[in-house]
Parts: sequence; structure tokens; C-alpha cells
Amino acid sequence: MDITSDTHSQHISQQFNQDLEAIKTQLMAMGGLVEKQLQEALTALLDGDSQLAIRVRDNDSSVNDMQLKIDEECVRILARRQPAASDLRLVIAVIRATNDLERMGDEANKIARNAIDLIEAGRIPQGSIEIRHISEHVGHMLRDALTAFARFDTELALKVVQEDASVDSEYTTAMRSLATFMMEDSRSIGGVLSVMTVLRALERIGDHADNLAEHVIYLVKGHDIRHISKKELDAEALRGR
Amino acid sequence: MDITSDTHSQHISQQFNQDLEAIKTQLMAMGGLVEKQLQEALTALLDGDSQLAIRVRDNDSSVNDMQLKIDEECVRILARRQPAASDLRLVIAVIRATNDLERMGDEANKIARNAIDLIEAGRIPQGSIEIRHISEHVGHMLRDALTAFARFDTELALKVVQEDASVDSEYTTAMRSLATFMMEDSRSIGGVLSVMTVLRALERIGDHADNLAEHVIYLVKGHDIRHISKKELDAEALRGR
Repeated sequence: MDITSDTHSQHISQQFNQDLEAIKTQLMAMGGLVEKQLQEALTALLDGDSQLAIRVRDNDSSVNDMQLKIDEECVRILARRQPAASDLRLVIAVIRATNDLERMGDEANKIARNAIDLIEAGRIPQGSIEIRHISEHVGHMLRDALTAFARFDTELALKVVQEDASVDSEYTTAMRSLATFMMEDSRSIGGVLSVMTVLRALERIGDHADNLAEHVIYLVKGHDIRHISKKELDAEALRGR
Repeated sequence: MDITSDTHSQHISQQFNQDLEAIKTQLMAMGGLVEKQLQEALTALLDGDSQLAIRVRDNDSSVNDMQLKIDEECVRILARRQPAASDLRLVIAVIRATNDLERMGDEANKIARNAIDLIEAGRIPQGSIEIRHISEHVGHMLRDALTAFARFDTELALKVVQEDASVDSEYTTAMRSLATFMMEDSRSIGGVLSVMTVLRALERIGDHADNLAEHVIYLVKGHDIRHISKKELDAEALRGR
């Protein structure tokens, strides 16, 4: 054998880095698919395009398949490469992230299914302004969370985490105004309940984007910032400067 | 040194088994706390006990703390012990399970918060029969999922997975009847929306119990049965016999 032990271990570590890069790339692809599902579900809803809504609904299994594939790859890496420190945190963060992305895929699917119902019932959705507004906000959060993951950018990740509170308050306001609308016009109840489901799905997607961003901070800094208070969060932001 | 390499490695593997036992025990404790939170939130709601509801609401952070502690311990085991095969799957399953239990804790918290609102508004909750019925069902699922985890019992786990569909259908029926009730009496809308939130929380808890059961099957058999169809699920059940 010509290969020295050094070249051999270099080879192994190169292969290892490639494995880690590969799961990260796959995670980004999964994120891209979820973004597309979300955008198309919203377009279908707001443009009344039931064909598109059906396509989104039926495409949910691709998101699920990606989760299974990436998770399997992560477990394989844990078993064979026994990563430590930041490499280990990357694998853990990816496993957590596929879970959040898969849930977002479910929520996009829910939006598509409600779009189908609303379009079939021939309703111009009450609350479409609110849907537009909150979905833009949540769409940005998701994009930023994915970018933060791709670049290991904790500053951007913290911005996403801090953004979630304003989505929550927009959501609460929208739900209140829809409840009032229902009380004024009981014939609207069926349609408004569907719109509420859509808003709730968007709010949940915001929560999962928040989680994604928390995974980025965990993997880069090693701090688990899930469940920390607003005050501690601000301290974390200062520490990052 | 008197210690032979054999005793030494025996000692390490004994310590390792203790570590694995410890995270499993902690997971069961976390599950027990979530069960208690859920039961007390429901008791508070159905008995109109706002003191109890407030206690449940404020106790959510204990569930979160347990998740962080167990997850940290899991990552420590992955880093130091580099488990393989079924040991690795146990650690992965525990990380996934704490996530589901934490979400169930959030849902119990949501039930408590809605109980506080409903009690304050002095409403006898419309839909209390449905809440009672579905919560019993979901409570059983959670208990069985935890028992299945404690005993590595895949047969019981599959039973839980199969049960989830009937909770979903009970939920859909209940939501429909509540929507009809709203249409008939628009003064009920505010209260009924809160009750719908409670029912949705219960349905979500059922989903997470289903997930917990899937983690048990993954850890025992090594099959990832998330996202498989009803037909494949029946095949899985037959294979287990």
C-alpha cells in the first residue's frame, strides 16, 4: 500500500466534510421545496386557482420523502463518523430542522386544502388582506431562516427569532377582526372559519421558522436558546456583536 | 493498576447502559408531567376551576426545562459514547420524543389559557361533551404511547398509531357541529371559538402521541414509519406478529 496513514485520515476527513456538506445541501433543497409549496398554496388561494391548489396538496409527500432521506443520512453519519463538537451539533440541528420543515410542509398543505374548499364554495375570502400581509411577513422569516442556516449567520437568525412576536400579534389582531365579522354576518361563518385555519397555518409556519433560526444559533454557538425569555434573547443579541 | 482492560471496558459499558437508562427514565418523567398538565388543564376547564388553570399555565416552563435537560444529556451521550445501532436509535428517538412532549405541553398550556378565558367570561362551554369524549381518547393514546416507549412495545405503539385516525374523525365531527351551533346563535361565537381551540389542541396532542408511538417502532425495529400509508401500516402490524 502506498497510502500513508496521514493521507488515509485526510481522505476520511475529506469524505466526512463532504457528507456534512451533502446533508446541508439536501436540507436547503428541502427548504426550497417547502418555500415553493407555501408560495404556491397562497397564490392558489388568492388567485382562486384550484388546479394549483390540488397540485400543492398532492406534492406534500415529496417533502415527507425528503425528511426521511435526510434523517436517514444523519443517522448514518452519527453511526459511522461519530462526529463531535460543532460537527455533531450540525447533524443534530439538521435532524431538528427537517422536523420543522416537514411541519411547515403540512401547514402549506392545509392552506392548499382550505383553498380548494374556499374556491369550490365560490367565496372571495374575507380576510385576504390579512392573509397577504401575514404571509409576506412569514415568507420573509422562512427565507431568512434558511439563509441563516446556509451561511451559519447567527445575527440573521436572531432577527428571525425576534420577528416572530410581531407575526403573533398581527395574527391575534386578524383573528379578532374575523371573529367580529362573523358575528355581524352569520352567513360568512363557514368561509371565515376556513380563512382562520389559513391564518393559523401561517402563524404556525412563523413559529417553525423561529425554531429553524434557533437551530442555527445552537449549531454555531452551542447555546440552546429554545424557551428563553424576551430579556435573555436581547442579551443573546448583544453578546453576538 | 489492578484493573484489566476487560473490567475497564465492562465498567464503561455499564456506565453507558446507566446513561441510556437515565435518559429513558427522564423521558418518562417528562411524559408523566405532560400527562398531568393535560389532565389538570381539562379538569380546570370542565370544573370551571380558574386557580388550577392558572397553575397549569404557569407550570409550562417545567416541561420546557425538562426538554432542554434531556436533549443536552442526549447530545453528551452522542459525543462521549458514540453509540451505534439500537443504542443510537434510542438516543435519536428520545430527542424526537422530547420535541413531541414539549409540543403537547404547549397544547396543554393553550387549553389552560382558553379555560381561563372561558371561566372569566362565565360561559358553560358549549361542546363540553365533545371535549370530554375526545380528551379521554387522546389521554389513552398518550398513556399507551408512553407505556409503549417504557416497554419497547411495538404492538402497543402500532395500536396508538392506528387510533389516531379515529380521533381525527371525532374532531372533524365535533368541529362541524360547533360551526352549526355558531350559525344558529351568533352570541355564542366568542365562546365557541375558544372551545374549538381546545378541541384543536386535543387533536394535536393525539398527533404527537401518534409521533411518539412511531419513535418507539423506529427505535425497536429500525423502520421509520412516519409518513407511511394506511395500507403499509396494516402490513407493518402483520409483520410484527
